[in-house]
Amino acid sequence: MTARGPLLKDELDIVIPTIRDLAFLEQWRPYLSPYHLIIVQDGDPTKKIHVPEGYDYELYNRNDINRILGPKASCISFKDSACRCFGFMMSKKKYIFTIDDDCWVAKDPSGHEINALEQHITNLLSPSTPLFFNTLYDPYRAGADFVRGYPFSMREGVATAISHGLWLNVPDYDAPTQLVKPAEKNTRFVDAVMTIPKGTLFPMCGMNLAFDREMIGAAMYFGLMGDGQPIGRYDDMWAGWCCKVICDHLGFGVKTGLPYIHHSKASNPFVNLKKEYKGIFWQEEIIPFFQQVVLPKEAVTVEQCYIELAKQVGEKLNGLDPYFTNLSKAMVTWVEAWSEISSSHKKSQATANGSAVK
Amino acid sequence: MTARGPLLKDELDIVIPTIRDLAFLEQWRPYLSPYHLIIVQDGDPTKKIHVPEGYDYELYNRNDINRILGPKASCISFKDSACRCFGFMMSKKKYIFTIDDDCWVAKDPSGHEINALEQHITNLLSPSTPLFFNTLYDPYRAGADFVRGYPFSMREGVATAISHGLWLNVPDYDAPTQLVKPAEKNTRFVDAVMTIPKGTLFPMCGMNLAFDREMIGAAMYFGLMGDGQPIGRYDDMWAGWCCKVICDHLGFGVKTGLPYIHHSKASNPFVNLKKEYKGIFWQEEIIPFFQQVVLPKEAVTVEQCYIELAKQVGEKLNGLDPYFTNLSKAMVTWVEAWSEISSSHKKSQATANGSAVK
Repeated sequence: MTARGPLLKDELDIVIPTIRDLAFLEQWRPYLSPYHLIIVQDGDPTKKIHVPEGYDYELYNRNDINRILGPKASCISFKDSACRCFGFMMSKKKYIFTIDDDCWVAKDPSGHEINALEQHITNLLSPSTPLFFNTLYDPYRAGADFVRGYPFSMREGVATAISHGLWLNVPDYDAPTQLVKPAEKNTRFVDAVMTIPKGTLFPMCGMNLAFDREMIGAAMYFGLMGDGQPIGRYDDMWAGWCCKVICDHLGFGVKTGLPYIHHSKASNPFVNLKKEYKGIFWQEEIIPFFQQVVLPKEAVTVEQCYIELAKQVGEKLNGLDPYFTNLSKAMVTWVEAWSEISSSHKKSQATANGSAVK
Repeated sequence: MTARGPLLKDELDIVIPTIRDLAFLEQWRPYLSPYHLIIVQDGDPTKKIHVPEGYDYELYNRNDINRILGPKASCISFKDSACRCFGFMMSKKKYIFTIDDDCWVAKDPSGHEINALEQHITNLLSPSTPLFFNTLYDPYRAGADFVRGYPFSMREGVATAISHGLWLNVPDYDAPTQLVKPAEKNTRFVDAVMTIPKGTLFPMCGMNLAFDREMIGAAMYFGLMGDGQPIGRYDDMWAGWCCKVICDHLGFGVKTGLPYIHHSKASNPFVNLKKEYKGIFWQEEIIPFFQQVVLPKEAVTVEQCYIELAKQVGEKLNGLDPYFTNLSKAMVTWVEAWSEISSSHKKSQATANGSAVK
């Protein structure tokens, strides 16, 4: 392979959901400008979003989503950052990095800027170790290894599907915690990357997240949130629960820890409480559901797993609220749309390559 | 409660296995001298061990072990640091901190000495969260909390039984890794404490370890190692696997991470390889055994769980080597001895308190 500048430049898209001008990209320029952006404009489609010069991007607003997906556009949320998953679908690349527009470049304890994307790529390109815990954290990092007692047969690890990064300054708290601790800031830089063990669920935050689109993209659906829906701020959680059980089933790894971004501003806790309150009690039943869900052996692709999961959501969570019947249907719509868009990508790529298209 | 100087002074013993003078205690004086030591002298019982002045201690050599336990002394290893578990048995306290005699006071990144014992006590006195992963690590630390999406019903956590500390400088590698990376040092200070999730095994190292003796002590048996045995250097691993499945069954928590100690000197990798080599292939079957072991609902005390585990070890690992039949029997002997010593402790305490002894 020849040198090609920034790592995976031709294999990675950056997906940003937004309702405003993307001033934060000025600060990220040294790290993100070599990459292609997919901007998903939420809210009023007539509003013009300003993207700093020098960035290569495509932008989709609600009209575009409706035009491209037709009736299937119903699975894409409106007026909620859950709309970002439309960008995952439109990407033709292997890897995705998605970041919120209020996330800035963080500094490590020695004062150096953190290249978050580079760390995500490192995480995704090195294996995960979900089957046994390594007490010195990621054994593939420089200066670390597997400790005494770690089975040798497990030291190759498994392929990593998801890299979940963290946040300095404003932590990702729910509304009740925000209300109780309005001033709490995260100042602790934990210099670790670790694999979330198989069988363990985690709260996946979409603010600073990277994943292998080919491995897990079809399950990276952010659900029905926001406008017309009874819930918000559970989009990334939903995606995280679904993705984790599918990664566990298919033998993929999920890492969390580094890289940090600097999260500038806590959202309004009163507004958040309104969005979250159903989720706060629903999650008490949703999480046991995901902890107990078993996918059939016959489900060997992400799409098959996701269809099966959608079925079980419809069957087992519908007693909680009719919303879950709708969500179950939307999950199926999402996978159908994902497959259609993927095959149209493949066709256009084949045409571009001059190959015969059947 | 009145102020009482060092935390838990009357409730914690420090257990040290050794074959040499305890010079390292000079450096630990500010942190450890307020506590009572239980020294388990390994090897030649006629050798005199020097303990720095000002320390309050009791010392047991092989003759003492044989005298106190009689025929049951067969379960206590000789010429291996596994003998330390005899000290756990002799303690009358609620908490144990055990440390190797080549472990020194570490410094944090700002150059301050780390009071390892204080951090272990903090870990043991705060709950664990084995049922769901918190991405900001220990939610009970100052400046941290549960992140968005963490179920509220799980935020009380569970009682912590074990605090597993780490090592700066010489990491705890097995012989093959020592041979491949003779010069590797751990210089990465990871400022985190975390719960090892339920259902996940980990390699527990005995170098820098604290636990609640009342909760898990009866399972903190370091096995048959060293003199007359086909294996060494798997004592703490064995204890860790047993304790973890029992903690998971009984709903207790296990934490790992801080505190660090400074581990001064790697042991000889060639000697280690000789001790370890059977363990290196045995663990490939032992770990799947522990990953699949199910304890019956009727086992509600650590002792009951341990007896059941011993039975399953005898039944399911005996095909691997006759050693496991012996180990299974030794596990039962250990629990019997533990119960006898515990009840004699209780009787003498009752007598000392002037209570009636039945």
